[in-house]
Amino acid sequence: MTKKRVTLKEVAARASVSYQTVSKILNHQAQVTDSTRQRVLEAVRELGYTPSYTARSLRSQRSKTIGYTWEPSSLDQFNPILDEFLRSMFITAEERGYYLLCYPYYQDIERQLETYRQLIDTGRVDAFVLSIINYNDPYVHYLLEQKFPFVGFGRLDDPPSFPNIDVDGGLGLHMAVEHLLSLGHHRIAALVWPEDSRVGNSRMAGYYEAMNEIGVDVHPEWIKRGEGCYATGFQAANQLLDLPDDIRPTGIVAMNDLMAIGAIAAIRQKGLRPGKDVAVTGFDDTPSARYLTPPLTSLRQPISLIGRNLMERLITFLETGKYPEPFAELVAPELVVRESTTGLEVPPATS
Amino acid sequence: MTKKRVTLKEVAARASVSYQTVSKILNHQAQVTDSTRQRVLEAVRELGYTPSYTARSLRSQRSKTIGYTWEPSSLDQFNPILDEFLRSMFITAEERGYYLLCYPYYQDIERQLETYRQLIDTGRVDAFVLSIINYNDPYVHYLLEQKFPFVGFGRLDDPPSFPNIDVDGGLGLHMAVEHLLSLGHHRIAALVWPEDSRVGNSRMAGYYEAMNEIGVDVHPEWIKRGEGCYATGFQAANQLLDLPDDIRPTGIVAMNDLMAIGAIAAIRQKGLRPGKDVAVTGFDDTPSARYLTPPLTSLRQPISLIGRNLMERLITFLETGKYPEPFAELVAPELVVRESTTGLEVPPATS
Repeated sequence: MTKKRVTLKEVAARASVSYQTVSKILNHQAQVTDSTRQRVLEAVRELGYTPSYTARSLRSQRSKTIGYTWEPSSLDQFNPILDEFLRSMFITAEERGYYLLCYPYYQDIERQLETYRQLIDTGRVDAFVLSIINYNDPYVHYLLEQKFPFVGFGRLDDPPSFPNIDVDGGLGLHMAVEHLLSLGHHRIAALVWPEDSRVGNSRMAGYYEAMNEIGVDVHPEWIKRGEGCYATGFQAANQLLDLPDDIRPTGIVAMNDLMAIGAIAAIRQKGLRPGKDVAVTGFDDTPSARYLTPPLTSLRQPISLIGRNLMERLITFLETGKYPEPFAELVAPELVVRESTTGLEVPPATS
Repeated sequence: MTKKRVTLKEVAARASVSYQTVSKILNHQAQVTDSTRQRVLEAVRELGYTPSYTARSLRSQRSKTIGYTWEPSSLDQFNPILDEFLRSMFITAEERGYYLLCYPYYQDIERQLETYRQLIDTGRVDAFVLSIINYNDPYVHYLLEQKFPFVGFGRLDDPPSFPNIDVDGGLGLHMAVEHLLSLGHHRIAALVWPEDSRVGNSRMAGYYEAMNEIGVDVHPEWIKRGEGCYATGFQAANQLLDLPDDIRPTGIVAMNDLMAIGAIAAIRQKGLRPGKDVAVTGFDDTPSARYLTPPLTSLRQPISLIGRNLMERLITFLETGKYPEPFAELVAPELVVRESTTGLEVPPATS
């Protein structure tokens, strides 16, 4: 059914040498004359022989394959980093003879562990990249316990128990808050995920830091928590805008673009001008951020850099045969400033 | 470095039988007593033996792996189907013991062919799913020539030269145009990719069909072509709105959401009301479509259904050992109606 692969035997016949000689030459083990070597390599080229990946990985006990999965997005959301992250990983992998294998994500922990077990026990993958890392993460625990190599996009503990690279979300929020402060805002609210969110908490640290540096007391009403969706941003902003004048925020930093978009809709519905009366920042710089009304100020993560570095370090570990030493590396996000904070000049939607 | 795998020999020792006996029992080839079989299977369970994937695939000459790649998106765009399409494929694959392998996409045809050659020659994958299918597609030609199994998300020719499933984009445009006609619009323009776009042309067939059915002559000025980006939509809509009164469109159908978003910005900049003065439809129903101002009427593709069906048919081919017979299947998109066609009720952005 599929194309017939050229075998070592055919190469040997063409070069008039034994099967063993070809095998040894190709594995750089043979002591043969230059003319024999040349004859064999010519036969290899002429026939288009490629060593079988499965035969080779059986010998090396390596699949040269890295596993990765990610949490599904709901219909009204999308994974803002998926395309870029996958691409940066599989391009880097291919340069070194590796490929990326995608496996399903299951909400059920036992079911998901079964997938990990299956992939490890059958020798399907040599290592994993994890990007969904929660407190008490069962997959991190499992892989550490199995001493199976992996790296994380995201940190968990300090000192780190596994190699990871993460975006410095705290620094990002620090930048967003400083940007709003510099525009004259002082009452700055935050839209954030629930308290069990590791990513949310590390970002909020930067919010508090920036507010403390300038001596602004954070009012407890300014911190609004909920799932990172449009409705959360909309409802939270409504509540914020109903606060008494002296504590009503004029700036809002959101932990993702979708909450920021919800907040902007609420601001407009109150008859206020998003970007002028109330400034809003997002996080992720999703592709549509620039096309919103007003265009959204947001924090962009250096996803390609992270994907490439994670993959390069992982493959280096695998190639040297050493179990990855834990390390933690932080990279800075970039604040992309647009009209949702600097003020909006568009004709009114005359209705 | 990685977890030590239990070997067949260890199972044999535990069950006090020969290596060959274990191997034959596990491959359902052995004629042994029930008690021997039971002893071996107990040893397998006790030791947690799993047959090595590489050893097994060496015997079967199968990798149980399907390859897939896709075209990168630019920074201001994103792939609206990627997450859902990948997910539907790898969930279906895993149910049947297969996984999805992602490989790089290269603009350079020779470089990309090299990747295909590499994946095939090393036995890395058993088949491919192609989703970028162009006229005279070099990868379709190569895989057909190699008789290497693949299925396409997208059609190319009639009768089909390979198995494929596609969204009926022509039907989609037909639905969009009919929707605008039913709202009283007759001068309906189309924003479409350049003429070498296979997808664009099949969608435009539906536009012409719907216009012809109601007896509206399509004015040549109404067809605007360009790359499917925001700027194209913006510029094209500007030109359309500058047309003389008697041919100036009041409805615009775009081949993707991004062109529709650009068109809406141009309509607003002219002091017109998008959704009231000029109705606009998109294609893809991107996650942010519902959060735009106004929310965008768009066509949604049944991506999960397509991913699942493609994978199921492909694996069935592989498991039966038959080379896939060409077929072409069309699935209907769904028109999601929002305020960009039905009229918008939001407070003006008082500035």
